[in-house]
Amino acid sequence: MNYREVETDGEYLARLETGSDWRAELEALADRVEADAGWFTAMGAVEDAEVWFYDQDETEYRSVEFDEPLEVAACVGNVALLDGERFAHTHAVLSRRSGQALAGHLNAGTVFAGEAYLRAFETPLERERDDVTDLDLWL
Amino acid sequence: MNYREVETDGEYLARLETGSDWRAELEALADRVEADAGWFTAMGAVEDAEVWFYDQDETEYRSVEFDEPLEVAACVGNVALLDGERFAHTHAVLSRRSGQALAGHLNAGTVFAGEAYLRAFETPLERERDDVTDLDLWL
Amino acid sequence: MNYREVETDGEYLARLETGSDWRAELEALADRVEADAGWFTAMGAVEDAEVWFYDQDETEYRSVEFDEPLEVAACVGNVALLDGERFAHTHAVLSRRSGQALAGHLNAGTVFAGEAYLRAFETPLERERDDVTDLDLWL
Repeated sequence: MNYREVETDGEYLARLETGSDWRAELEALADRVEADAGWFTAMGAVEDAEVWFYDQDETEYRSVEFDEPLEVAACVGNVALLDGERFAHTHAVLSRRSGQALAGHLNAGTVFAGEAYLRAFETPLERERDDVTDLDLWL
Repeated sequence: MNYREVETDGEYLARLETGSDWRAELEALADRVEADAGWFTAMGAVEDAEVWFYDQDETEYRSVEFDEPLEVAACVGNVALLDGERFAHTHAVLSRRSGQALAGHLNAGTVFAGEAYLRAFETPLERERDDVTDLDLWL
Repeated sequence: MNYREVETDGEYLARLETGSDWRAELEALADRVEADAGWFTAMGAVEDAEVWFYDQDETEYRSVEFDEPLEVAACVGNVALLDGERFAHTHAVLSRRSGQALAGHLNAGTVFAGEAYLRAFETPLERERDDVTDLDLWL
């Protein structure tokens, strides 16, 4: 296992803007506070969502779209540099009116309301292609 | 996007009391440590749960009740003042014996066992009615 | 409710090793940084998973195994001493290609890729048998 001790530069609360994209908002927050590394949790609701599932055999993401209002019951992710840009690797658990839960890598989703907590770390994280998983990983 | 840098006053671990209400326990913790703003994650199990889904068109919460034991696989939320009282905005992902996941805004649930981590922030958060979503939002 | 104010000793980011066990990796991280108490959140993907559901009437865990690739949409847990060993109490929300979510106490799962954030606390947490729930609880 690779690990790193981190020092926190700053802690932030954000209210994600209604109508904007959930992941883009997290990246906008990282941009505003100049966080090249960070860890976040968040919750709220979206008007729709595009969730990705990684096909571990084909090493490709598969997209599933949900064109319906969903609660964001839990969102966990982190900020790192990917090709020089701040990228928010965002996983989320969503739910329908029945209470049924959906989940995965949240590529996109239209914010209805969102509340996020971000810790920004001093030392940048950089994603690089990992040969084993064919994913862009840090450390 | 609205955001605020926050300073942490204190960090707390809590064991939620068997038989009490999950959200009330988080609010009791906030009361005990006098946190007018905070962020928490938690996990455990409940004996039952009342989960809310926000109807974005009708701008009303819809309640779904589960009268059965459930794991609390993930719980994310925050503490803010709502009409002068500490309110724990609590989202959670629950699961059944089959592994099936349920999720949403957790209004209530009888604690079977619960473990929580809360960060209390110096500056109070206050919820106010937002005209766009008809929700009580902070910042 | 029992609670404790905690002081953080260190904060760590970890990349869990492909092919290793998810929970064992979190415990290995706690061992490496000598954390006898800690709180973590994590996300990623596993090649399979063994999820436990606690039967609150029989006070026994029931195991469900999923022998398929799954996203780890959210993982929340903590580190404490159990019989003198560091134990990572780990709950997780997983998802299938369809977006369907599964969740529970994550006993085991083969890491495909994993990203974790751990806060290590100064004062050890110790789990002891609780008579009411027949679980090993801290505080």
